[in-house]
Amino acid sequence: MSGQRILYDLAAADPERRFSPYCWRIRMALAHKGLAVDTVPWRFTEKYAIAPSGQPLVPVLVDNGRWLSDSWTIANYLEDTYPQAPSLFGGAAARSLTRFYATAADALGPAMARMLVLDIHDRIADKDRTYFRQTREKRFGMTLEAAVADREQRLPAFRDALAPLRAVLKTQPFFGGDAPLYADYAFFGPFQWARCISPFRILDEVDPLNGWLGRLLERFDGLAGKAPAYY
Amino acid sequence: MSGQRILYDLAAADPERRFSPYCWRIRMALAHKGLAVDTVPWRFTEKYAIAPSGQPLVPVLVDNGRWLSDSWTIANYLEDTYPQAPSLFGGAAARSLTRFYATAADALGPAMARMLVLDIHDRIADKDRTYFRQTREKRFGMTLEAAVADREQRLPAFRDALAPLRAVLKTQPFFGGDAPLYADYAFFGPFQWARCISPFRILDEVDPLNGWLGRLLERFDGLAGKAPAYY
Repeated sequence: MSGQRILYDLAAADPERRFSPYCWRIRMALAHKGLAVDTVPWRFTEKYAIAPSGQPLVPVLVDNGRWLSDSWTIANYLEDTYPQAPSLFGGAAARSLTRFYATAADALGPAMARMLVLDIHDRIADKDRTYFRQTREKRFGMTLEAAVADREQRLPAFRDALAPLRAVLKTQPFFGGDAPLYADYAFFGPFQWARCISPFRILDEVDPLNGWLGRLLERFDGLAGKAPAYY
Repeated sequence: MSGQRILYDLAAADPERRFSPYCWRIRMALAHKGLAVDTVPWRFTEKYAIAPSGQPLVPVLVDNGRWLSDSWTIANYLEDTYPQAPSLFGGAAARSLTRFYATAADALGPAMARMLVLDIHDRIADKDRTYFRQTREKRFGMTLEAAVADREQRLPAFRDALAPLRAVLKTQPFFGGDAPLYADYAFFGPFQWARCISPFRILDEVDPLNGWLGRLLERFDGLAGKAPAYY
């Protein structure tokens, strides 16, 4: 199926360094479904390349000529279009229940971005830096340097907020149970983002969440684990 | 089936005022399963009454002579023991996915308790007050009066933290989809707790979460909506 399916995948200056939490969700979802894909490194300022999707953000998947955007929309499209492949959700009720995983994982974004934003800036392509700095400084209401200045002090509250995830993974290997589902990939995205774009340790090395993360890094012949990352 | 099934249910001085978030989960779960139950008003200091459960906390369910505790354990017991009744989870994957709803809902507890704890104290039975004050003041490291003093200022951060719930319920009526599942009851518990024990408005009156809450209050002939509450 390779060649029929293209994913525009956010890349750093090094085109092999892929770091969008939303793109990683879809890369894992495609692998879960057993669907081959050609990924295209995409930079923040290459809006023109994904214009046919009708919006300016990745992931953008082109599946047999059909342009799709938004990770939740794409996951549902894959589930419905390839029903014979392993389910991403685990049934109708489970699909409804999965929505909250995506929104709860999204909610980690701002706190993580606040800690990582300067590391991201320093690793993205030169042509992206002005755009990135301007949009993010506007979002945070301060310079990137100021945003990350107190990140060590912010870390404990961020880690404390992950307690509900740890509580689940103490009693089961994945959110989906014995095997991962899209719910797992939803939360995996932000952690993969962090380790791919910054050496700053979001999780303590003894955090039990590392066990779950490690199991996901190994999946699909190490798809995510073999990708360029800092730890 | 009435008489064969007893739920020890946390009560205020008024025995009809039931306010445990964990007991409410189980009352909704029993109703979802169509299982009749006799509830027994139980006070914090009546540990002797539930001693056969082997631990000191409600909910405690006695089902045909079998003593059960812990809301998650009870929910799973009900699902497995009454498989012919409507599913609380919606399948095997959905059951695994539901665990996080319980742990995420539990995580709301401390912030809510910090705002409600004095109102709780003022409404529980006289015989419970010394126990309650001592255990909660130890937990918060301050007097109950000090704990609630800045609750108005704490409210915005609490409400902001509910954004992932709102994002889901903007696109579907329940976490479980078109109809509620245990995942809904897991989050319902803390909100029902708040409205049953305190006039302090945890949610803004225009919060879209009120729509979801209202739908749950109406379920099962208004089981939760008819219970004594402040709003």
